[in-house]
Amino acid sequence: MKQVVLRHALAARPVAGDFDVVGAAVPDCPDGGVVARVLHISLDPYVGSRLRGRHMGEPPPAPGIDPIPGAVVAEVVVSRLPGIAEGDVVQSMEGGWAEFVALPGEHVRRIDPAVAPLSAHAGVLGMPGLTAWAGITQLAAVGPGDIVLVDAAAGAVGGTVGQIARLKGAARVVGIAGGPDKCALVTGSYGFDACIDYKAEGWHDALTAALPEPPTVHFENVSTAMASMALARLRPYGRMVLCGLVDQYHADTPPPGLNAGLIVGKRAQVCGLVVYDFYDRWDIFLADVAPWVASGALGIAEDVAHGLDAAPALFERLMEGRNIGKALVSLV
Amino acid sequence: MKQVVLRHALAARPVAGDFDVVGAAVPDCPDGGVVARVLHISLDPYVGSRLRGRHMGEPPPAPGIDPIPGAVVAEVVVSRLPGIAEGDVVQSMEGGWAEFVALPGEHVRRIDPAVAPLSAHAGVLGMPGLTAWAGITQLAAVGPGDIVLVDAAAGAVGGTVGQIARLKGAARVVGIAGGPDKCALVTGSYGFDACIDYKAEGWHDALTAALPEPPTVHFENVSTAMASMALARLRPYGRMVLCGLVDQYHADTPPPGLNAGLIVGKRAQVCGLVVYDFYDRWDIFLADVAPWVASGALGIAEDVAHGLDAAPALFERLMEGRNIGKALVSLV
Repeated sequence: MKQVVLRHALAARPVAGDFDVVGAAVPDCPDGGVVARVLHISLDPYVGSRLRGRHMGEPPPAPGIDPIPGAVVAEVVVSRLPGIAEGDVVQSMEGGWAEFVALPGEHVRRIDPAVAPLSAHAGVLGMPGLTAWAGITQLAAVGPGDIVLVDAAAGAVGGTVGQIARLKGAARVVGIAGGPDKCALVTGSYGFDACIDYKAEGWHDALTAALPEPPTVHFENVSTAMASMALARLRPYGRMVLCGLVDQYHADTPPPGLNAGLIVGKRAQVCGLVVYDFYDRWDIFLADVAPWVASGALGIAEDVAHGLDAAPALFERLMEGRNIGKALVSLV
Repeated sequence: MKQVVLRHALAARPVAGDFDVVGAAVPDCPDGGVVARVLHISLDPYVGSRLRGRHMGEPPPAPGIDPIPGAVVAEVVVSRLPGIAEGDVVQSMEGGWAEFVALPGEHVRRIDPAVAPLSAHAGVLGMPGLTAWAGITQLAAVGPGDIVLVDAAAGAVGGTVGQIARLKGAARVVGIAGGPDKCALVTGSYGFDACIDYKAEGWHDALTAALPEPPTVHFENVSTAMASMALARLRPYGRMVLCGLVDQYHADTPPPGLNAGLIVGKRAQVCGLVVYDFYDRWDIFLADVAPWVASGALGIAEDVAHGLDAAPALFERLMEGRNIGKALVSLV
């Protein structure tokens, strides 16, 4: 089979040339696990820091040997896991960029293929969707009357954040994204009330105009600087979910932090979100979100690379924020 | 009567020479309010920033004219407020450094003199006590098993924080204070499990030794730098109440902020506390706290200046953190 590995240890934000596509043996099936043929691979920003050993204490993959880690949707070809049969489609947060993956049982979740296209389980029904749902429903508890601001709004997490917020009754949902194409996606397909292009001149004024009332909730996907901007705009007693700080993943020194005096003055509630904490609520998440996906009320654009050879270039685009929608590699 | 005023507009942290004690007419009684003879004046750090127009948008007092603002315990001498009679003892957050104050009705709260010595209503039963109670019970919801860290632990807020935390069932309460005298007060009179002198060499190691398990709750009274230190030590999912950032009150540029990546990694919940928000819970606060004060289970040392002439010097000591316990001016 083929898999993607690191060409060498990384010292900076990864680019396409840092990867190699190499041959490898199909892995053996672990006791209590499965071997599965990979159908879709989710490319996620956190993998960039994980490749450098900067994510949650997890070691980076060994160059030339370990496949790049990534969530997958895959079809079981060998099962030694009770309740999972050959031919079942499963998702796993701990797959890899490979044609076949060995998955320990605790990382395997069976998918109902009738709910949505399988690739949705790498996005709005996968980890990005769980992340958005956890922040909006479990931490910020968004409901009627809330005004929600979110950045990286064209991406899988940000786009889902705004749509779930709306579906939970938010009065207004405003996104921030980079470039007119992304903003058109956010207001068009995703149905946000407004989306501000942070690369356009005068965007702070445009954001002010898009928020005649200040946001009650902010969901941060990008940077401390953006979070600080949002904190300054937040309504008193507002909630802020810190989720992704992509700039910090590859910075050598941490950026200037959040102004603590502003947190006091706003009586803000600032909390950190790590999606791992919510894996045990996956069934609750699916019960909430899957009907919206099935009905078409909730969906995310996909930015698809076909085949493992195309994965490194898409990952580089993801690292640069040039993807539009959920970045995934399809092997079918 | 006598009152204390600013000698001139302030450009820096106030010192004793910035104040004058001057003569003034006893104020008239407002409709629906009272005139009261001041018994005790609470000196509080926030007043330092208020004098410079940096507190919650409130204008500074006019030099030479307006008395320095401050919470008072006072005896009513004229009442035009239904339900309040001459001779009643009241407290008000909006009094001043003067022998007599005029208080609008909405700022008057009658005191039961049987509960505790009257000066306690400037401290543990006054705004500092409400501040501590609000953070520990209403925001952090401290209960059995919690390990609570608080700085400025010898002060009125910090000392009450630790004692209320213990009374609410916290497993361990650790303070930080400046100097051996303050630390002795914190572990002795206040009954904290440990108090670390941040002015002593090796205090970070001493704090580590005092916290064999990391804190689940931190209450910040001093600075963003101290909050950052505590955030780094906080147990995952811990809560942090930001209350006083005394260093920021007089800084010309804000200090480096809280590391947002650390908030995410810790899944910390960081919230801002402004005591004004809890004035409408005063009766709940008193019902909770007054029995502890009456029984002697809760109390704060007092650092008392006698007479208005002594107020400026005590305030300077407060600004420098050299007071020990609740700073108050007694006129009786």
